[in-house]
Amino acid sequence: MTLDSILEEIKAAEKIVILTHEAPDGDAIGSSLAMMHALRKIGKESDVIIPEYSRLFSFLPGSEEIKKESDIEEYDLAIALDCGDIKRLKYGEKHFEDAKRKVQIDHHGSNTMFADLNFVNPVSPACCEILVEMFQYYGIEIDKTIGTCLVTGIITDTGGFRYQKTSAETFEFTAELLREGVNVSDIYKRVQDTKTRENFELSKLVINRMELLEDGKVTFTYITQEDTKRIGAEVGDHEGLVEIGRDIEGVEVAIFIREKEDGSFKASLRSNDYVNVADICLLFGGGGHQRAAGCNLNDDKDVVKEKLLNEIRKVLK
Amino acid sequence: MTLDSILEEIKAAEKIVILTHEAPDGDAIGSSLAMMHALRKIGKESDVIIPEYSRLFSFLPGSEEIKKESDIEEYDLAIALDCGDIKRLKYGEKHFEDAKRKVQIDHHGSNTMFADLNFVNPVSPACCEILVEMFQYYGIEIDKTIGTCLVTGIITDTGGFRYQKTSAETFEFTAELLREGVNVSDIYKRVQDTKTRENFELSKLVINRMELLEDGKVTFTYITQEDTKRIGAEVGDHEGLVEIGRDIEGVEVAIFIREKEDGSFKASLRSNDYVNVADICLLFGGGGHQRAAGCNLNDDKDVVKEKLLNEIRKVLK
Repeated sequence: MTLDSILEEIKAAEKIVILTHEAPDGDAIGSSLAMMHALRKIGKESDVIIPEYSRLFSFLPGSEEIKKESDIEEYDLAIALDCGDIKRLKYGEKHFEDAKRKVQIDHHGSNTMFADLNFVNPVSPACCEILVEMFQYYGIEIDKTIGTCLVTGIITDTGGFRYQKTSAETFEFTAELLREGVNVSDIYKRVQDTKTRENFELSKLVINRMELLEDGKVTFTYITQEDTKRIGAEVGDHEGLVEIGRDIEGVEVAIFIREKEDGSFKASLRSNDYVNVADICLLFGGGGHQRAAGCNLNDDKDVVKEKLLNEIRKVLK
Repeated sequence: MTLDSILEEIKAAEKIVILTHEAPDGDAIGSSLAMMHALRKIGKESDVIIPEYSRLFSFLPGSEEIKKESDIEEYDLAIALDCGDIKRLKYGEKHFEDAKRKVQIDHHGSNTMFADLNFVNPVSPACCEILVEMFQYYGIEIDKTIGTCLVTGIITDTGGFRYQKTSAETFEFTAELLREGVNVSDIYKRVQDTKTRENFELSKLVINRMELLEDGKVTFTYITQEDTKRIGAEVGDHEGLVEIGRDIEGVEVAIFIREKEDGSFKASLRSNDYVNVADICLLFGGGGHQRAAGCNLNDDKDVVKEKLLNEIRKVLK
């Protein structure tokens, strides 16, 4: 079984590095730190390398040990977490490729199986939930420290227990963590509710610019580079903006586009009931899930809007 | 035990009325409909009377049976749900007082024990969670219909599983409902995420008027009667507005004031970590919980703001 082989690799390795995707969210950081703590419990030290992440996650136990970079040229074992494609490791890609052995644990359906050992479960709502299964299999006790990291990932990737993938097991595991003394409510507030001031300023723009189109079934809004610079927004500050348009009564598809540094636009699409936004994003070289997807377009704001609207119109009921 | 006595009253009654608090939220409507369905399972019909509620709840099974009023002058049994004070029954107060026997089931710490039989558990995060215990005690099967109503109340009153009162039992019960086929995610979206257009318009005003005060530890924002009228906001459309200011990083207290028809202001206060806003509201004749409370002030907008700020300043760290 893959889990047994992974454990053998861990036991054989001296120098271990833990890597995750760029612009890391709570599941990326939570699973990385949970893995670090879990490895320590079986006598293994590891480096967690994350060059940049939102300060909202600095409450996580072990976050003070996160390294921005590493001098070690060749690790014995690299473990990639919550990352569907090696390219999304970005800064970590080299460390991963140079490592003697490569393992990954992930829950993205689009995973490209880029490691030597791939433990991928696309049904799982969060990478952290896969780690629960893994740690239990290894007999590693999920204490308050590890539990805090794991529930952070679960809350992030289930949108606070709201998405369809949230399973009975998710709720049951959370109940166990609560009994273990993990302050689920506090973590929820920190990772799901708290907005940076920059995020608040961006959401103000997003709301003021919100257009209700197609009889209120589609919303469109945007953020320019000028906005991002003026507000001083950083990694993580754009989280949650696309959902604002999705959550208005009667809306089926929400479009949020954000100008990147090179002047092109990153489009994020969300749908509520029936439009497959992954299909639409695929037309523009992007992808994602049925109800949450994205793509990049190298056009003018208004052209981007029209191109996306054109495709959405074809499938609106 | 009170639960046995309540069951006796139910069995003895012919005409039963179910009542809840004015401006009913998901826990009020959810518990009322769950009770109606549960009574039916033991052979008892009942009237649920709710004159006015947000259309967002019209997906609830049985909502089409809700009565706006009733011609029956004297019920054999009145059951008040999720209501801490008989005055909050408002339109239902007369039906309650005129009923031969009076029962109430509630979870407000401030409950005035106004019925003949009071089953009140202030530790419970939702009235609907008390009903779970009650129905299980009575051996009433919690099927998909009843489960849908109950989880609506639980999601509403735990803020989507986010508040501190959310217990291991809450998560475990939700896991059971999921296994029973209740679409928790869909209900979550409907009652927690979906905003009416009117609510969206109000939130736009609230965000644009948001003031960060006291080094960003306090937020203040408001809605006037003119806003409410122009937007055509109704019962339920003001939900969630106070939380917008609370969720900005660094904020300890959020103040949201809303002008009422008589020109006075209803103030809602929320805190994050240490300020007891119930104590502050008590000074102005209001009350509530430590982290969520309210009061009414009959002053000018700016005077209301200053009065509240004055008290908050005394306890800010």
